[in-house]
Amino acid sequence: MQILTTAAGLQAYTEQARQAGHRVGLVPTMGALHAGHLQLVQAARADCNEVIASIFVNPTQFNNAEDFRLYPRVPEADAALLAPAGCTALFAPSVAEMYPQPTVLHFDFGALERVMEGAHRPGHFNGVATVVSKLFHMARPHRAYFGQKDWQQVAVVKQLVADLSFDLEIVACPTIREADGLAMSSRNRRLDAPARAAAPLLYQVLQAAAAQVRQGVPPAQVQATAEATLTREPLFTSEYMAVADAQTLQPLTNYAPGRAVVLCLAAHLGGVRLIDNMVVAG
Amino acid sequence: MQILTTAAGLQAYTEQARQAGHRVGLVPTMGALHAGHLQLVQAARADCNEVIASIFVNPTQFNNAEDFRLYPRVPEADAALLAPAGCTALFAPSVAEMYPQPTVLHFDFGALERVMEGAHRPGHFNGVATVVSKLFHMARPHRAYFGQKDWQQVAVVKQLVADLSFDLEIVACPTIREADGLAMSSRNRRLDAPARAAAPLLYQVLQAAAAQVRQGVPPAQVQATAEATLTREPLFTSEYMAVADAQTLQPLTNYAPGRAVVLCLAAHLGGVRLIDNMVVAG
Repeated sequence: MQILTTAAGLQAYTEQARQAGHRVGLVPTMGALHAGHLQLVQAARADCNEVIASIFVNPTQFNNAEDFRLYPRVPEADAALLAPAGCTALFAPSVAEMYPQPTVLHFDFGALERVMEGAHRPGHFNGVATVVSKLFHMARPHRAYFGQKDWQQVAVVKQLVADLSFDLEIVACPTIREADGLAMSSRNRRLDAPARAAAPLLYQVLQAAAAQVRQGVPPAQVQATAEATLTREPLFTSEYMAVADAQTLQPLTNYAPGRAVVLCLAAHLGGVRLIDNMVVAG
Repeated sequence: MQILTTAAGLQAYTEQARQAGHRVGLVPTMGALHAGHLQLVQAARADCNEVIASIFVNPTQFNNAEDFRLYPRVPEADAALLAPAGCTALFAPSVAEMYPQPTVLHFDFGALERVMEGAHRPGHFNGVATVVSKLFHMARPHRAYFGQKDWQQVAVVKQLVADLSFDLEIVACPTIREADGLAMSSRNRRLDAPARAAAPLLYQVLQAAAAQVRQGVPPAQVQATAEATLTREPLFTSEYMAVADAQTLQPLTNYAPGRAVVLCLAAHLGGVRLIDNMVVAG
Protein backbone atom coordinates (compact mmCIF):
# COMPACT_ATOMS: atom_id res chain seq x y z
CA MET A 1 0.00 0.00 0.00
CA GLN A 2 1.35 3.40 -1.03
CA ILE A 3 1.11 6.33 1.33
CA LEU A 4 0.45 9.62 -0.48
CA THR A 5 0.42 13.04 1.16
CA THR A 6 0.19 15.49 -1.75
CA ALA A 7 -2.53 16.32 -4.27
CA ALA A 8 0.01 16.10 -7.10
CA GLY A 9 1.16 12.69 -5.88
CA LEU A 10 -2.39 11.36 -5.77
CA GLN A 11 -3.22 12.84 -9.19
CA ALA A 12 -0.12 11.25 -10.73
CA TYR A 13 -0.98 7.91 -9.11
CA THR A 14 -4.56 7.84 -10.40
CA GLU A 15 -3.71 9.25 -13.83
CA GLN A 16 -1.30 6.36 -14.28
CA ALA A 17 -3.88 3.87 -12.97
CA ARG A 18 -6.50 5.12 -15.43
CA GLN A 19 -4.01 5.13 -18.30
CA ALA A 20 -3.35 1.47 -17.47
CA GLY A 21 -7.09 0.84 -17.80
CA HIS A 22 -7.57 0.21 -14.07
CA ARG A 23 -10.82 0.84 -12.21
CA VAL A 24 -10.30 3.28 -9.35
CA GLY A 25 -12.36 3.20 -6.14
CA LEU A 26 -12.28 5.98 -3.55
CA VAL A 27 -13.22 5.62 0.11
CA PRO A 28 -13.33 9.09 1.67
CA THR A 29 -13.06 8.82 5.47
CA MET A 30 -11.76 11.01 8.27
CA GLY A 31 -9.68 8.17 9.71
CA ALA A 32 -10.08 6.56 13.15
CA LEU A 33 -11.27 3.59 11.15
CA HIS A 34 -13.71 0.95 12.30
CA ALA A 35 -15.44 -2.05 10.74
CA GLY A 36 -17.89 0.25 8.92
CA HIS A 37 -15.04 1.91 7.03
CA LEU A 38 -13.36 -1.41 6.32
CA GLN A 39 -16.58 -2.70 4.79
CA LEU A 40 -16.38 0.26 2.36
CA VAL A 41 -12.79 -0.66 1.49
CA GLN A 42 -13.78 -4.29 0.93
CA ALA A 43 -16.71 -3.27 -1.27
CA ALA A 44 -14.36 -1.05 -3.30
CA ARG A 45 -11.83 -3.85 -3.59
CA ALA A 46 -14.47 -6.18 -4.99
CA ASP A 47 -15.22 -3.67 -7.81
CA CYS A 48 -11.90 -1.94 -8.49
CA ASN A 49 -8.20 -2.64 -9.11
CA GLU A 50 -7.14 0.43 -7.18
CA VAL A 51 -8.65 1.40 -3.83
CA ILE A 52 -7.72 4.78 -2.45
CA ALA A 53 -8.70 5.56 1.14
CA SER A 54 -8.50 9.15 2.35
CA ILE A 55 -8.13 9.75 6.09
CA PHE A 56 -8.07 13.56 5.94
CA VAL A 57 -9.90 15.18 8.87
CA ASN A 58 -11.58 18.04 7.02
CA PRO A 59 -11.74 21.23 9.11
CA THR A 60 -14.29 22.97 6.88
CA GLN A 61 -17.07 20.51 7.69
CA PHE A 62 -16.81 21.05 11.45
CA ASN A 63 -19.01 23.86 12.68
CA ASN A 64 -17.60 23.34 16.19
CA ALA A 65 -13.87 23.95 16.73
CA GLU A 66 -13.80 21.75 19.82
CA ASP A 67 -15.35 18.83 17.93
CA PHE A 68 -12.61 19.23 15.28
CA ARG A 69 -9.88 19.38 17.91
CA LEU A 70 -11.14 16.28 19.72
CA TYR A 71 -11.84 14.24 16.59
CA PRO A 72 -9.73 11.06 16.95
CA ARG A 73 -6.58 10.89 14.81
CA VAL A 74 -4.71 7.55 14.68
CA PRO A 75 -3.03 7.41 11.26
CA GLU A 76 -0.65 4.55 12.06
CA ALA A 77 -3.49 2.35 13.31
CA ASP A 78 -5.54 3.31 10.25
CA ALA A 79 -2.72 2.30 7.90
CA ALA A 80 -2.37 -1.04 9.68
CA LEU A 81 -6.08 -1.75 9.12
CA LEU A 82 -6.27 -0.53 5.52
CA ALA A 83 -3.54 -2.62 3.89
CA PRO A 84 -5.00 -6.03 4.80
CA ALA A 85 -8.51 -4.83 3.84
CA GLY A 86 -7.33 -4.34 0.25
CA CYS A 87 -6.49 -0.65 0.15
CA THR A 88 -3.80 0.08 -2.44
CA ALA A 89 -3.16 3.74 -1.58
CA LEU A 90 -3.68 5.75 1.60
CA PHE A 91 -4.14 9.50 1.15
CA ALA A 92 -3.18 11.51 4.25
CA PRO A 93 -2.61 15.15 3.27
CA SER A 94 -2.10 18.13 5.57
CA VAL A 95 -4.69 20.88 5.89
CA ALA A 96 -2.33 23.24 4.00
CA GLU A 97 -2.09 20.71 1.15
CA MET A 98 -5.88 20.48 0.80
CA TYR A 99 -6.52 24.19 1.40
CA PRO A 100 -3.50 26.12 0.08
CA GLN A 101 -5.66 29.27 0.05
CA PRO A 102 -8.91 30.22 1.77
CA THR A 103 -11.97 28.92 -0.06
CA VAL A 104 -14.22 31.63 -1.49
CA LEU A 105 -17.05 29.68 -3.10
CA HIS A 106 -19.93 28.41 -1.03
CA PHE A 107 -22.35 25.60 -1.91
CA ASP A 108 -26.02 25.75 -1.02
CA PHE A 109 -28.13 22.60 -1.46
CA GLY A 110 -31.44 24.30 -0.68
CA ALA A 111 -34.14 22.27 1.06
CA LEU A 112 -31.86 19.21 1.17
CA GLU A 113 -29.68 20.94 3.78
CA ARG A 114 -32.33 22.95 5.62
CA VAL A 115 -33.13 19.88 7.75
CA MET A 116 -31.37 17.54 10.20
CA GLU A 117 -27.54 17.77 10.06
CA GLY A 118 -27.64 20.76 7.71
CA ALA A 119 -29.99 22.67 10.00
CA HIS A 120 -28.05 21.82 13.17
CA ARG A 121 -24.53 22.16 11.80
CA PRO A 122 -24.43 25.39 9.73
CA GLY A 123 -21.86 25.17 6.94
CA HIS A 124 -21.36 21.42 7.43
CA PHE A 125 -22.49 20.36 3.95
CA ASN A 126 -20.64 23.22 2.29
CA GLY A 127 -17.49 21.77 3.86
CA VAL A 128 -18.45 18.23 2.85
CA ALA A 129 -19.20 19.21 -0.77
CA THR A 130 -15.96 21.18 -1.00
CA VAL A 131 -13.69 18.43 0.29
CA VAL A 132 -15.51 15.70 -1.64
CA SER A 133 -15.14 17.72 -4.86
CA LYS A 134 -11.43 18.14 -4.16
CA LEU A 135 -10.98 14.42 -3.43
CA PHE A 136 -12.89 13.49 -6.60
CA HIS A 137 -10.63 15.78 -8.65
CA MET A 138 -7.50 14.36 -7.06
CA ALA A 139 -8.42 10.67 -7.03
CA ARG A 140 -10.51 10.60 -10.26
CA PRO A 141 -12.44 7.53 -9.06
CA HIS A 142 -14.83 5.46 -11.15
CA ARG A 143 -16.71 4.78 -7.93
CA ALA A 144 -16.77 6.39 -4.48
CA TYR A 145 -18.04 4.58 -1.39
CA PHE A 146 -19.95 6.17 1.48
CA GLY A 147 -21.68 4.79 4.56
CA GLN A 148 -25.45 5.07 4.96
CA LYS A 149 -24.95 6.05 8.59
CA ASP A 150 -24.50 9.54 7.13
CA TRP A 151 -27.78 9.33 5.21
CA GLN A 152 -28.09 13.05 4.52
CA GLN A 153 -24.43 13.25 3.48
CA VAL A 154 -25.03 10.52 0.91
CA ALA A 155 -28.04 12.48 -0.42
CA VAL A 156 -26.01 15.69 -0.65
CA VAL A 157 -23.07 13.98 -2.37
CA LYS A 158 -25.39 12.28 -4.88
CA GLN A 159 -26.94 15.69 -5.62
CA LEU A 160 -23.46 17.20 -6.06
CA VAL A 161 -22.47 14.43 -8.49
CA ALA A 162 -25.70 14.78 -10.49
CA ASP A 163 -25.73 18.59 -10.58
CA LEU A 164 -22.08 18.97 -11.63
CA SER A 165 -22.04 15.86 -13.87
CA PHE A 166 -19.13 14.21 -12.07
CA ASP A 167 -18.29 11.12 -14.14
CA LEU A 168 -18.43 8.60 -11.31
CA GLU A 169 -20.84 6.44 -9.36
CA ILE A 170 -21.71 6.81 -5.68
CA VAL A 171 -22.06 3.52 -3.81
CA ALA A 172 -23.82 3.68 -0.42
CA CYS A 173 -23.12 0.81 2.00
CA PRO A 174 -25.28 -0.23 4.99
CA THR A 175 -24.50 0.91 8.52
CA ILE A 176 -22.40 -1.56 10.50
CA ARG A 177 -23.40 -1.99 14.16
CA GLU A 178 -21.85 -3.30 17.33
CA ALA A 179 -23.43 -6.47 18.79
CA ASP A 180 -25.67 -4.31 21.00
CA GLY A 181 -26.90 -2.26 18.04
CA LEU A 182 -24.76 0.88 18.43
CA ALA A 183 -23.88 2.21 14.97
CA MET A 184 -20.12 2.17 14.44
CA SER A 185 -18.65 5.67 14.53
CA SER A 186 -15.21 7.13 15.02
CA ARG A 187 -16.72 9.23 17.77
CA ASN A 188 -17.66 6.11 19.82
CA ARG A 189 -14.03 6.03 21.07
CA ARG A 190 -14.74 9.18 23.01
CA LEU A 191 -17.60 7.60 25.04
CA ASP A 192 -16.74 6.77 28.66
CA ALA A 193 -18.04 3.52 30.18
CA PRO A 194 -21.44 4.80 31.42
CA ALA A 195 -22.07 6.60 28.13
CA ARG A 196 -21.04 3.54 26.12
CA ALA A 197 -23.44 1.42 28.17
CA ALA A 198 -26.31 3.84 27.52
CA ALA A 199 -25.51 4.36 23.82
CA PRO A 200 -27.51 1.42 22.36
CA LEU A 201 -30.68 3.26 23.36
CA LEU A 202 -30.37 5.20 20.09
CA TYR A 203 -30.78 2.01 18.09
CA GLN A 204 -33.62 0.81 20.32
CA VAL A 205 -35.44 4.11 19.83
CA LEU A 206 -35.04 3.79 16.05
CA GLN A 207 -36.28 0.19 16.08
CA ALA A 208 -39.36 1.16 18.10
CA ALA A 209 -40.02 4.13 15.81
CA ALA A 210 -39.66 1.94 12.70
CA ALA A 211 -42.22 -0.48 14.14
CA GLN A 212 -44.60 2.43 14.71
CA VAL A 213 -44.11 3.67 11.13
CA ARG A 214 -44.93 0.20 9.82
CA GLN A 215 -48.12 0.29 11.92
CA GLY A 216 -49.08 3.66 10.43
CA VAL A 217 -48.65 5.69 13.62
CA PRO A 218 -48.60 9.36 12.49
CA PRO A 219 -45.12 10.93 12.09
CA ALA A 220 -45.65 13.55 14.82
CA GLN A 221 -46.52 10.83 17.32
CA VAL A 222 -43.55 8.67 16.29
CA GLN A 223 -41.26 11.65 16.79
CA ALA A 224 -42.76 12.57 20.17
CA THR A 225 -42.50 8.99 21.48
CA ALA A 226 -38.84 8.71 20.41
CA GLU A 227 -37.90 12.04 21.99
CA ALA A 228 -39.73 11.17 25.20
CA THR A 229 -37.80 7.89 25.46
CA LEU A 230 -34.46 9.66 24.98
CA THR A 231 -35.42 12.34 27.51
CA ARG A 232 -36.01 9.70 30.18
CA GLU A 233 -32.34 8.64 29.97
CA PRO A 234 -30.47 11.41 31.87
CA LEU A 235 -27.15 10.88 30.02
CA PHE A 236 -28.80 11.81 26.70
CA THR A 237 -29.69 15.22 25.29
CA SER A 238 -31.74 14.77 22.14
CA GLU A 239 -30.89 17.19 19.33
CA TYR A 240 -33.45 16.10 16.74
CA MET A 241 -35.53 13.13 15.72
CA ALA A 242 -36.86 13.37 12.17
CA VAL A 243 -39.46 11.29 10.35
CA ALA A 244 -38.70 12.19 6.77
CA ASP A 245 -39.06 11.15 3.15
CA ALA A 246 -36.02 8.94 2.48
CA GLN A 247 -35.25 10.65 -0.85
CA THR A 248 -36.05 14.32 -0.31
CA LEU A 249 -35.29 14.26 3.47
CA GLN A 250 -38.23 16.59 4.03
CA PRO A 251 -40.24 16.01 7.23
CA LEU A 252 -43.47 14.08 6.79
CA THR A 253 -46.89 14.98 8.12
CA ASN A 254 -48.27 11.69 6.80
CA TYR A 255 -47.11 8.67 4.81
CA ALA A 256 -47.34 8.28 1.03
CA PRO A 257 -47.77 4.77 -0.41
CA GLY A 258 -44.61 3.48 -2.05
CA ARG A 259 -42.34 6.18 -0.57
CA ALA A 260 -39.64 4.99 1.83
CA VAL A 261 -39.35 6.76 5.18
CA VAL A 262 -36.08 7.55 6.93
CA LEU A 263 -35.87 8.00 10.69
CA CYS A 264 -32.87 10.14 11.63
CA LEU A 265 -31.73 11.20 15.05
CA ALA A 266 -28.92 13.11 16.67
CA ALA A 267 -28.20 13.20 20.40
CA HIS A 268 -25.45 14.25 22.77
CA LEU A 269 -24.20 11.62 25.15
CA GLY A 270 -21.48 12.46 27.68
CA GLY A 271 -20.12 15.32 25.56
CA VAL A 272 -20.14 13.28 22.33
CA ARG A 273 -22.55 13.95 19.49
CA LEU A 274 -23.91 10.77 17.88
CA ILE A 275 -26.20 10.27 14.89
CA ASP A 276 -28.02 7.23 13.57
CA ASN A 277 -30.83 6.42 11.15
CA MET A 278 -33.08 3.67 9.91
CA VAL A 279 -35.01 3.31 6.66
CA VAL A 280 -38.52 1.88 6.50
CA ALA A 281 -39.53 0.70 3.04
CA GLY A 282 -42.57 2.46 1.59
CA MET B 1 -13.52 16.92 -36.65
CA GLN B 2 -15.93 14.76 -34.69
CA ILE B 3 -19.34 16.10 -33.72
CA LEU B 4 -20.48 14.92 -30.26
CA THR B 5 -23.90 15.56 -28.79
CA THR B 6 -23.95 13.43 -25.61
CA ALA B 7 -22.11 13.61 -22.30
CA ALA B 8 -21.28 9.90 -22.53
CA GLY B 9 -19.91 10.35 -26.04
CA LEU B 10 -17.66 13.22 -24.95
CA GLN B 11 -16.49 11.34 -21.85
CA ALA B 12 -15.61 8.27 -23.93
CA TYR B 13 -13.77 10.47 -26.45
CA THR B 14 -11.64 12.23 -23.84
CA GLU B 15 -11.04 9.12 -21.73
CA GLN B 16 -9.56 7.47 -24.82
CA ALA B 17 -7.52 10.59 -25.63
CA ARG B 18 -6.06 10.69 -22.12
CA GLN B 19 -5.36 6.95 -22.15
CA ALA B 20 -3.41 7.55 -25.36
CA GLY B 21 -1.37 10.16 -23.49
CA HIS B 22 -2.83 13.08 -25.46
CA ARG B 23 -3.14 16.61 -24.08
CA VAL B 24 -6.75 17.79 -24.12
CA GLY B 25 -7.75 21.45 -24.55
CA LEU B 26 -11.29 22.70 -23.99
CA VAL B 27 -12.75 25.90 -25.46
CA PRO B 28 -16.14 26.53 -23.84
CA THR B 29 -18.20 28.90 -26.00
CA MET B 30 -21.89 29.51 -26.63
CA GLY B 31 -21.42 29.33 -30.40
CA ALA B 32 -22.04 32.14 -32.92
CA LEU B 33 -18.29 32.11 -33.24
CA HIS B 34 -16.11 35.05 -34.18
CA ALA B 35 -12.37 35.68 -34.45
CA GLY B 36 -12.09 35.95 -30.65
CA HIS B 37 -13.28 32.37 -30.25
CA LEU B 38 -11.09 31.13 -33.07
CA GLN B 39 -8.07 32.66 -31.35
CA LEU B 40 -8.92 30.47 -28.32
CA VAL B 41 -9.10 27.39 -30.56
CA GLN B 42 -5.76 28.26 -32.15
CA ALA B 43 -4.14 28.79 -28.74
CA ALA B 44 -5.50 25.40 -27.62
CA ARG B 45 -4.24 23.76 -30.80
CA ALA B 46 -0.75 25.09 -30.16
CA ASP B 47 -0.69 23.40 -26.72
CA CYS B 48 -2.81 20.27 -27.10
CA ASN B 49 -3.33 17.25 -29.37
CA GLU B 50 -7.08 17.32 -28.86
CA VAL B 51 -9.12 20.53 -28.98
CA ILE B 52 -12.75 20.27 -27.93
CA ALA B 53 -14.99 23.28 -28.57
CA SER B 54 -18.38 23.42 -26.88
CA ILE B 55 -21.09 25.57 -28.49
CA PHE B 56 -23.82 24.86 -25.91
CA VAL B 57 -25.97 27.94 -25.21
CA ASN B 58 -26.39 27.52 -21.47
CA PRO B 59 -29.86 28.59 -20.26
CA THR B 60 -28.91 28.72 -16.57
CA GLN B 61 -26.52 31.65 -17.02
CA PHE B 62 -29.16 33.89 -18.63
CA ASN B 63 -31.10 35.91 -16.10
CA ASN B 64 -33.23 37.28 -18.95
CA ALA B 65 -35.39 34.81 -20.92
CA GLU B 66 -35.56 37.14 -23.93
CA ASP B 67 -31.77 37.42 -24.06
CA PHE B 68 -31.58 33.60 -24.07
CA ARG B 69 -34.21 33.34 -26.79
CA LEU B 70 -32.50 35.91 -29.02
CA TYR B 71 -28.95 34.62 -28.46
CA PRO B 72 -27.63 33.77 -31.95
CA ARG B 73 -27.47 30.06 -32.83
CA VAL B 74 -25.65 29.09 -36.04
CA PRO B 75 -24.23 25.59 -35.44
CA GLU B 76 -23.48 24.80 -39.10
CA ALA B 77 -21.52 28.03 -39.56
CA ASP B 78 -19.70 27.34 -36.25
CA ALA B 79 -18.69 23.85 -37.40
CA ALA B 80 -17.39 25.27 -40.68
CA LEU B 81 -15.16 27.71 -38.78
CA LEU B 82 -13.92 25.28 -36.12
CA ALA B 83 -12.50 22.49 -38.28
CA PRO B 84 -9.96 24.66 -40.17
CA ALA B 85 -8.99 26.41 -36.92
CA GLY B 86 -7.74 23.08 -35.52
CA CYS B 87 -10.70 21.87 -33.47
CA THR B 88 -10.78 18.06 -33.26
CA ALA B 89 -14.19 17.65 -31.60
CA LEU B 90 -17.28 19.87 -31.52
CA PHE B 91 -19.60 19.37 -28.53
CA ALA B 92 -23.19 20.45 -29.24
CA PRO B 93 -25.50 18.86 -26.65
CA SER B 94 -29.19 19.59 -26.09
CA VAL B 95 -30.42 21.33 -22.94
CA ALA B 96 -31.95 18.01 -21.79
CA GLU B 97 -28.57 16.29 -22.23
CA MET B 98 -26.78 18.87 -20.08
CA TYR B 99 -29.60 19.20 -17.53
CA PRO B 100 -31.39 15.82 -17.32
CA GLN B 101 -32.86 16.94 -13.99
CA PRO B 102 -33.31 20.34 -12.34
CA THR B 103 -30.16 21.55 -10.59
CA VAL B 104 -30.49 21.87 -6.81
CA LEU B 105 -27.08 23.14 -5.72
CA HIS B 106 -26.25 26.82 -5.93
CA PHE B 107 -22.80 28.41 -6.01
CA ASP B 108 -22.04 31.65 -4.24
CA PHE B 109 -18.70 33.36 -4.92
CA GLY B 110 -19.13 36.06 -2.31
CA ALA B 111 -17.62 39.49 -2.96
CA LEU B 112 -16.32 38.33 -6.34
CA GLU B 113 -19.85 38.21 -7.68
CA ARG B 114 -21.40 41.10 -5.75
CA VAL B 115 -20.06 43.55 -8.35
CA MET B 116 -20.41 44.23 -12.08
CA GLU B 117 -21.94 41.30 -14.03
CA GLY B 118 -22.74 39.37 -10.84
CA ALA B 119 -24.57 42.34 -9.34
CA HIS B 120 -26.48 43.16 -12.54
CA ARG B 121 -27.28 39.60 -13.64
CA PRO B 122 -28.50 37.70 -10.56
CA GLY B 123 -27.71 33.98 -10.82
CA HIS B 124 -25.43 34.48 -13.83
CA PHE B 125 -22.25 33.15 -12.22
CA ASN B 126 -24.08 30.28 -10.58
CA GLY B 127 -25.11 29.22 -14.08
CA VAL B 128 -21.58 29.76 -15.41
CA ALA B 129 -19.95 27.76 -12.60
CA THR B 130 -22.48 24.95 -13.01
CA VAL B 131 -22.06 24.54 -16.75
CA VAL B 132 -18.28 24.99 -16.61
CA SER B 133 -18.05 22.28 -13.92
CA LYS B 134 -20.15 19.96 -16.09
CA LEU B 135 -18.01 20.65 -19.17
CA PHE B 136 -14.81 20.07 -17.17
CA HIS B 137 -16.16 16.72 -15.94
CA MET B 138 -17.21 15.68 -19.42
CA ALA B 139 -14.18 16.91 -21.37
CA ARG B 140 -11.50 16.28 -18.68
CA PRO B 141 -9.22 18.93 -20.20
CA HIS B 142 -5.62 19.60 -19.24
CA ARG B 143 -6.25 23.23 -20.18
CA ALA B 144 -9.36 25.33 -20.72
CA TYR B 145 -9.33 28.57 -22.70
CA PHE B 146 -11.41 31.67 -21.94
CA GLY B 147 -11.50 35.19 -23.37
CA GLN B 148 -10.51 38.17 -21.23
CA LYS B 149 -13.48 40.08 -22.61
CA ASP B 150 -15.38 38.29 -19.84
CA TRP B 151 -12.92 39.45 -17.19
CA GLN B 152 -15.13 38.68 -14.19
CA GLN B 153 -16.04 35.28 -15.63
CA VAL B 154 -12.35 34.40 -15.88
CA ALA B 155 -11.90 35.44 -12.22
CA VAL B 156 -14.89 33.33 -11.12
CA VAL B 157 -13.76 30.28 -13.10
CA LYS B 158 -10.22 30.56 -11.70
CA GLN B 159 -11.71 30.70 -8.20
CA LEU B 160 -13.86 27.65 -8.96
CA VAL B 161 -10.83 25.70 -10.19
CA ALA B 162 -8.73 26.66 -7.16
CA ASP B 163 -11.45 26.10 -4.56
CA LEU B 164 -12.50 22.66 -5.87
CA SER B 165 -8.97 21.59 -6.90
CA PHE B 166 -9.88 20.89 -10.51
CA ASP B 167 -6.77 19.32 -12.05
CA LEU B 168 -6.47 21.67 -15.03
CA GLU B 169 -5.11 25.05 -16.03
CA ILE B 170 -7.14 28.09 -17.06
CA VAL B 171 -5.66 30.06 -19.96
CA ALA B 172 -7.05 33.58 -20.49
CA CYS B 173 -6.59 35.09 -23.96
CA PRO B 174 -6.72 38.80 -24.88
CA THR B 175 -9.86 40.43 -26.27
CA ILE B 176 -9.96 40.56 -30.06
CA ARG B 177 -11.38 43.77 -31.55
CA GLU B 178 -12.80 44.95 -34.85
CA ALA B 179 -10.73 47.51 -36.77
CA ASP B 180 -12.71 50.33 -35.12
CA GLY B 181 -12.06 48.97 -31.62
CA LEU B 182 -15.40 47.22 -30.92
CA ALA B 183 -14.73 44.09 -28.88
CA MET B 184 -15.80 40.98 -30.78
CA SER B 185 -18.95 39.46 -29.33
CA SER B 186 -21.60 37.05 -30.54
CA ARG B 187 -24.15 39.69 -29.61
CA ASN B 188 -22.68 42.17 -32.14
CA ARG B 189 -24.68 40.37 -34.87
CA ARG B 190 -27.84 41.74 -33.29
CA LEU B 191 -26.77 45.40 -33.70
CA ASP B 192 -28.54 47.29 -36.49
CA ALA B 193 -26.55 49.72 -38.68
CA PRO B 194 -26.92 52.85 -36.49
CA ALA B 195 -26.11 50.87 -33.32
CA ARG B 196 -23.12 49.24 -34.98
CA ALA B 197 -21.86 52.68 -36.06
CA ALA B 198 -22.17 53.99 -32.48
CA ALA B 199 -20.74 50.86 -30.79
CA PRO B 200 -17.00 51.77 -30.92
CA LEU B 201 -17.73 54.51 -28.38
CA LEU B 202 -17.40 51.82 -25.66
CA TYR B 203 -13.77 51.26 -26.59
CA GLN B 204 -13.11 54.99 -26.85
CA VAL B 205 -14.55 55.53 -23.39
CA LEU B 206 -12.29 52.76 -22.00
CA GLN B 207 -9.23 54.21 -23.72
CA ALA B 208 -9.93 57.68 -22.32
CA ALA B 209 -10.55 56.22 -18.84
CA ALA B 210 -7.33 54.20 -19.01
CA ALA B 211 -5.40 57.36 -19.89
CA GLN B 212 -6.96 59.08 -16.85
CA VAL B 213 -6.01 56.16 -14.57
CA ARG B 214 -2.41 56.38 -15.80
CA GLN B 215 -2.50 60.10 -14.94
CA GLY B 216 -3.74 59.34 -11.43
CA VAL B 217 -7.22 60.86 -11.87
CA PRO B 218 -9.26 59.55 -8.89
CA PRO B 219 -11.49 56.49 -9.62
CA ALA B 220 -14.76 58.33 -8.90
CA GLN B 221 -13.88 61.01 -11.42
CA VAL B 222 -12.81 58.45 -14.05
CA GLN B 223 -16.13 56.68 -13.60
CA ALA B 224 -18.18 59.91 -13.76
CA THR B 225 -16.41 61.10 -16.94
CA ALA B 226 -16.97 57.75 -18.67
CA GLU B 227 -20.65 57.60 -17.75
CA ALA B 228 -21.17 61.23 -18.85
CA THR B 229 -19.63 60.44 -22.25
CA LEU B 230 -21.92 57.44 -22.74
CA THR B 231 -24.96 59.41 -21.63
CA ARG B 232 -24.34 62.02 -24.35
CA GLU B 233 -24.82 59.34 -27.05
CA PRO B 234 -28.62 58.84 -27.17
CA LEU B 235 -28.44 55.25 -28.50
CA PHE B 236 -26.59 54.13 -25.34
CA THR B 237 -27.95 53.35 -21.89
CA SER B 238 -25.06 52.82 -19.50
CA GLU B 239 -25.54 49.98 -16.99
CA TYR B 240 -22.32 50.29 -15.03
CA MET B 241 -18.78 51.57 -15.34
CA ALA B 242 -16.41 50.15 -12.71
CA VAL B 243 -12.89 51.15 -11.75
CA ALA B 244 -11.77 48.08 -9.84
CA ASP B 245 -8.82 46.07 -8.59
CA ALA B 246 -7.96 43.72 -11.46
CA GLN B 247 -7.62 40.69 -9.15
CA THR B 248 -10.31 41.13 -6.49
CA LEU B 249 -12.70 43.08 -8.80
CA GLN B 250 -13.63 45.29 -5.84
CA PRO B 251 -14.27 48.97 -6.65
CA LEU B 252 -11.40 51.34 -5.91
CA THR B 253 -11.53 54.60 -4.02
CA ASN B 254 -7.86 55.21 -4.80
CA TYR B 255 -4.95 53.46 -6.50
CA ALA B 256 -2.42 51.16 -4.81
CA PRO B 257 1.14 51.02 -6.19
CA GLY B 258 1.82 47.78 -8.05
CA ARG B 259 -1.85 46.73 -8.25
CA ALA B 260 -3.36 46.50 -11.73
CA VAL B 261 -6.66 48.27 -12.33
CA VAL B 262 -9.47 46.93 -14.50
CA LEU B 263 -12.03 49.20 -16.13
CA CYS B 264 -15.25 47.33 -16.86
CA LEU B 265 -18.39 48.62 -18.46
CA ALA B 266 -21.78 47.36 -19.55
CA ALA B 267 -24.23 49.29 -21.71
CA HIS B 268 -27.38 48.71 -23.71
CA LEU B 269 -27.30 49.75 -27.35
CA GLY B 270 -30.38 49.33 -29.54
CA GLY B 271 -31.76 46.51 -27.37
CA VAL B 272 -28.42 44.67 -27.17
CA ARG B 273 -26.39 44.44 -23.98
CA LEU B 274 -22.64 44.82 -24.54
CA ILE B 275 -19.70 44.59 -22.13
CA ASP B 276 -16.04 45.48 -22.49
CA ASN B 277 -13.03 46.03 -20.26
CA MET B 278 -9.46 47.25 -20.23
CA VAL B 279 -6.61 46.55 -17.81
CA VAL B 280 -4.16 49.23 -16.70
CA ALA B 281 -0.93 47.82 -15.25
CA GLY B 282 -0.25 48.84 -11.66
